[in-house]
Amino acid sequence: MQPFAIAPSILSADFARLGEEVDKVLAAGADIVHFDVMDNHYVPNLTIGPMVCAALRKYGITAPIDVHLMVSPVDRIIGDFLEAGASYITFHPEATQHIDRSLQLIKAGGAKAGLVFNPATSLDALKYVMDKIDMVLLMSVNPGFGGQKFIPGTLDKLREARALIDASGRDIRLEIDGGVNVKNIRAIAEAGADTFVAGSAIFNQPDYKAVIDAMRAELALALP
Amino acid sequence: MQPFAIAPSILSADFARLGEEVDKVLAAGADIVHFDVMDNHYVPNLTIGPMVCAALRKYGITAPIDVHLMVSPVDRIIGDFLEAGASYITFHPEATQHIDRSLQLIKAGGAKAGLVFNPATSLDALKYVMDKIDMVLLMSVNPGFGGQKFIPGTLDKLREARALIDASGRDIRLEIDGGVNVKNIRAIAEAGADTFVAGSAIFNQPDYKAVIDAMRAELALALP
Amino acid sequence: MQPFAIAPSILSADFARLGEEVDKVLAAGADIVHFDVMDNHYVPNLTIGPMVCAALRKYGITAPIDVHLMVSPVDRIIGDFLEAGASYITFHPEATQHIDRSLQLIKAGGAKAGLVFNPATSLDALKYVMDKIDMVLLMSVNPGFGGQKFIPGTLDKLREARALIDASGRDIRLEIDGGVNVKNIRAIAEAGADTFVAGSAIFNQPDYKAVIDAMRAELALALP
Amino acid sequence: MQPFAIAPSILSADFARLGEEVDKVLAAGADIVHFDVMDNHYVPNLTIGPMVCAALRKYGITAPIDVHLMVSPVDRIIGDFLEAGASYITFHPEATQHIDRSLQLIKAGGAKAGLVFNPATSLDALKYVMDKIDMVLLMSVNPGFGGQKFIPGTLDKLREARALIDASGRDIRLEIDGGVNVKNIRAIAEAGADTFVAGSAIFNQPDYKAVIDAMRAELALALP
Amino acid sequence: MQPFAIAPSILSADFARLGEEVDKVLAAGADIVHFDVMDNHYVPNLTIGPMVCAALRKYGITAPIDVHLMVSPVDRIIGDFLEAGASYITFHPEATQHIDRSLQLIKAGGAKAGLVFNPATSLDALKYVMDKIDMVLLMSVNPGFGGQKFIPGTLDKLREARALIDASGRDIRLEIDGGVNVKNIRAIAEAGADTFVAGSAIFNQPDYKAVIDAMRAELALALP
Amino acid sequence: MQPFAIAPSILSADFARLGEEVDKVLAAGADIVHFDVMDNHYVPNLTIGPMVCAALRKYGITAPIDVHLMVSPVDRIIGDFLEAGASYITFHPEATQHIDRSLQLIKAGGAKAGLVFNPATSLDALKYVMDKIDMVLLMSVNPGFGGQKFIPGTLDKLREARALIDASGRDIRLEIDGGVNVKNIRAIAEAGADTFVAGSAIFNQPDYKAVIDAMRAELALALP
Repeated sequence: MQPFAIAPSILSADFARLGEEVDKVLAAGADIVHFDVMDNHYVPNLTIGPMVCAALRKYGITAPIDVHLMVSPVDRIIGDFLEAGASYITFHPEATQHIDRSLQLIKAGGAKAGLVFNPATSLDALKYVMDKIDMVLLMSVNPGFGGQKFIPGTLDKLREARALIDASGRDIRLEIDGGVNVKNIRAIAEAGADTFVAGSAIFNQPDYKAVIDAMRAELALALP
Repeated sequence: MQPFAIAPSILSADFARLGEEVDKVLAAGADIVHFDVMDNHYVPNLTIGPMVCAALRKYGITAPIDVHLMVSPVDRIIGDFLEAGASYITFHPEATQHIDRSLQLIKAGGAKAGLVFNPATSLDALKYVMDKIDMVLLMSVNPGFGGQKFIPGTLDKLREARALIDASGRDIRLEIDGGVNVKNIRAIAEAGADTFVAGSAIFNQPDYKAVIDAMRAELALALP
Repeated sequence: MQPFAIAPSILSADFARLGEEVDKVLAAGADIVHFDVMDNHYVPNLTIGPMVCAALRKYGITAPIDVHLMVSPVDRIIGDFLEAGASYITFHPEATQHIDRSLQLIKAGGAKAGLVFNPATSLDALKYVMDKIDMVLLMSVNPGFGGQKFIPGTLDKLREARALIDASGRDIRLEIDGGVNVKNIRAIAEAGADTFVAGSAIFNQPDYKAVIDAMRAELALALP
Repeated sequence: MQPFAIAPSILSADFARLGEEVDKVLAAGADIVHFDVMDNHYVPNLTIGPMVCAALRKYGITAPIDVHLMVSPVDRIIGDFLEAGASYITFHPEATQHIDRSLQLIKAGGAKAGLVFNPATSLDALKYVMDKIDMVLLMSVNPGFGGQKFIPGTLDKLREARALIDASGRDIRLEIDGGVNVKNIRAIAEAGADTFVAGSAIFNQPDYKAVIDAMRAELALALP
Repeated sequence: MQPFAIAPSILSADFARLGEEVDKVLAAGADIVHFDVMDNHYVPNLTIGPMVCAALRKYGITAPIDVHLMVSPVDRIIGDFLEAGASYITFHPEATQHIDRSLQLIKAGGAKAGLVFNPATSLDALKYVMDKIDMVLLMSVNPGFGGQKFIPGTLDKLREARALIDASGRDIRLEIDGGVNVKNIRAIAEAGADTFVAGSAIFNQPDYKAVIDAMRAELALALP
Repeated sequence: MQPFAIAPSILSADFARLGEEVDKVLAAGADIVHFDVMDNHYVPNLTIGPMVCAALRKYGITAPIDVHLMVSPVDRIIGDFLEAGASYITFHPEATQHIDRSLQLIKAGGAKAGLVFNPATSLDALKYVMDKIDMVLLMSVNPGFGGQKFIPGTLDKLREARALIDASGRDIRLEIDGGVNVKNIRAIAEAGADTFVAGSAIFNQPDYKAVIDAMRAELALALP
């Protein structure tokens, strides 16, 4: 298992001063910049695209940028994000009919590749491509819809994903996204997650460091 | 005809410091913030959505924000942009099958409404909805594709659109987008445009005010 | 010009007793049964399909049934409605890429064929197929959306359509749909319509005959 | 396991006198009104929509109305059916990319929610949403196509679904749709179904009560 | 006006010996190889793609190959046909939302570009791109459907297209496709066509040269 | 298990002399003609359709023609290939929502039916339709993309498919497509495949018989 990583979702940051926000949250101890891309087709919302990612790199952000594609189709935009400096690119298996091909595209472009699973989606798509996977992202809310809470059943699904990852013997991050906060992060870690996306839980607080520190304190208590 | 307005496209601004960029370009004399929304379906690119518009309003931008939807379908996202503080919302007639309905949605939400015409698209869609139109936007390049020059035939199309607007007796902006720069802005104004989108021509220069002043100087020479 | 015809839209009738409702409105003096088909894709609503049309025929309805397809694509369902006993089948030109072909399908199946124009849609699609057209339907509201009023500009569009029909020398109905009522039916007729769809204006009243009679009285006053 | 319920599909009823037909079939002993919605996209047919459901409620039908959505996408029309008085709303997992979200929508609107499985579709989609499910519907013919017989392999699939439901400990109906008749209903019940959709088997007979009584007699013989 | 050209459609040739067939028809006097590409989406049929075009070039065919794209979308496959050696590439304006862009792609790739108009489609799309057009193709049957006759109204449409081309002062071919044969080719030429697609009229005859000679004899009689 | 069969993919043959090529490869010892259909939607390429299949039959090819549909939707074109003389028709389960129905269509038309699985696609779709399956095709590269090598994990997937087929007790071919050559064919056979698609491995060599003989020699060494 990889060391715990906190991945603030910039969807909750202030887009008018995004560079500063990202700097601030990284200075507060975040490990990874989580970047949510929605296209108004795969999900009913449209957020930010490759140009914003490139702007963060040009601004000087060197931390990993973890691009979660909530778009369909995926192949053409993968190229744009590779050029824009993405570190991880993850997509939903049902958003393409050529999963293996899209994973190959990402890796050939020098980024790490992953699959994302909606709350109801089975993990079957991992089976034949585990050797091309660097990250598994489980959604614990429905992507693209606001105001949702962590779906409790995701804890069991995390255990299932953790077992698959461990069985593969590969170095794969297990990321969780949706309703993660200081109160539930320990239980989530104990279920197997090592990478924690948090949006409003961090950016809606005045002191990012306080939240991240509190999360880390909880994580330190997590049973192995 | 309305007074000339310069509308910098923030697609060429630095997304890492967008509030500051917009402040700066307005301080340099820009009149309208032009906001290009692409969904990776209507055009092969994905840019920025309603949250970025809302962030600019929250940041304190009070200038008109002119949202150009290069998306299909259009109705659901119109609501998002109304909430996000858009002043103008324009869309492509071929991106919806219910043009009159979409115009009504925009106006019922308190924004100004317009139609955008691709280089090859006829102006026919204006005919029966002129009374619901506040802006006509002519594309002088193909939207969503990079590195293009002003298509010369657009000057004649501007004259045609100007005649339709004048014949309507209504107070409608005639905006032009694509390859506008200091050298051609006068001819474009003489062909009938009153609102000028410029992206890299402004944001790729160190001194935004110098460019905008030069544009205004050219516009001052335009024959009525 | 054809004699005036009243075409109640059964979308406003009581679907629990549709046969009885149609009998009643025909007995009250209606000429044509207007049948609105929506597929939740071309318009955001889903109404009734071929089986309901067939049921009306089996129930004994012999009046013309005028099927307005608010669906896309159109070709497959045209066959279903031909079998179900449709008299007229009209569709939107932008809902198919093979307009001439769809008109041929309808006529080869023994029904009368027509095109429907949304409020903002130009009449251009009529130009090369006038010889295959038996009905032109102008929408005076946006199809598929509730609670709308007659769009006043449709009167001019009716005059334009009337001129095209008269110039063709062919026997073509000019139908109007949306917000037609006793107060505006005379002006609509004077603008050139000969076939009048009315939904709630008729079915939301206790006495269908009283409404239809009042409409006919207004029509009798219409200037030629 | 819930008590056996007979759910006549009104697709085989007389649409010209639907209220009367539904009254009659309920009086004959039916428990649930099965309501098949097709949109000419998910399946090649278009049937009836929310207005027909609302009309049945207005007519006075108080029995449960069980709406089977053979449509894609599903979210927008779920709202319409909630307003129209649906008791159950079921949809196909492959018709949406946000299964958990759609189930939540249905339940938040006060209806019972379910998933429908085509003959070849695996039951995997149940795994992570069992706690939001009130009904599992197995298709024993291909939906939207006419003239088909009960697919025998569905008996094994019923046993598999029954085991999943029993293991969940939840109160979930297991419904079967396609080719159910007096001859095979007992075997179907023994395989685990508790809710039986029947269309032409009931409505094509002169005496609905005779058929339903015969079905119940068979069900009474079913081994537990 | 360009000299008359006969363009046999290889859709009617023997695909098992296509090189030989094309050789034979060129030896029989044909000028241009007409290549019909259908994708089972824009039209309900799937024919042949870029590999077949490339095979003809590799086989040694040096005559112009005139690729008619009955596909949607068009941009990606344009690149494939440029590489495959297409001389002309034409597409339907309603099959893309970026007509000017697609024309630019074709010309930048070194081929000649054109637009194709279905029987009911207006010629409006030509208006703003006439300077990028090398060929206008009018369909005199509905593309993708078998067993159709020349639609007589196309003669008037040819006159209209001829007037537009002549007014442009540019060197543009006016091609006609659908139901052309020895009997009607003279009238078609007199209406303004200079390039004649013929499929079964040529390939279903034992002696290609006899048919082409007969066509040329008719064309020689055409009034200027 | 069925006897080994070599199935050259004519996508690598010379399309200008296809009849001759197919004759030649059959004379060289091939058993089955593999026919790859791409529609530029399910995969980013467009190849050959029903007319080419029909031409091979008319040319005199009597060997089995094995049509692999890389298209979506599938039902309409199945009919075309049945008429064109296809022996096997296989399709991808994710390309249709009515898998059982499509299999029935193929078999009712007199052809053998099969499902194709992309590299990352699970074999779940086989579960409820094994009794309608005559061929299982595993893709060992991503269909529609060029220049790929055999994906090694496919060997395990072949073993899994072989076990499912053997457990069914049915006479089902297990075909493999993608990167098969003389060097790896023995290992592929030992993993359970009995039918081997090879394209460039055969057609890019001057002597087809030499390649096929070498493949058969390797197959003769395969452990049972």
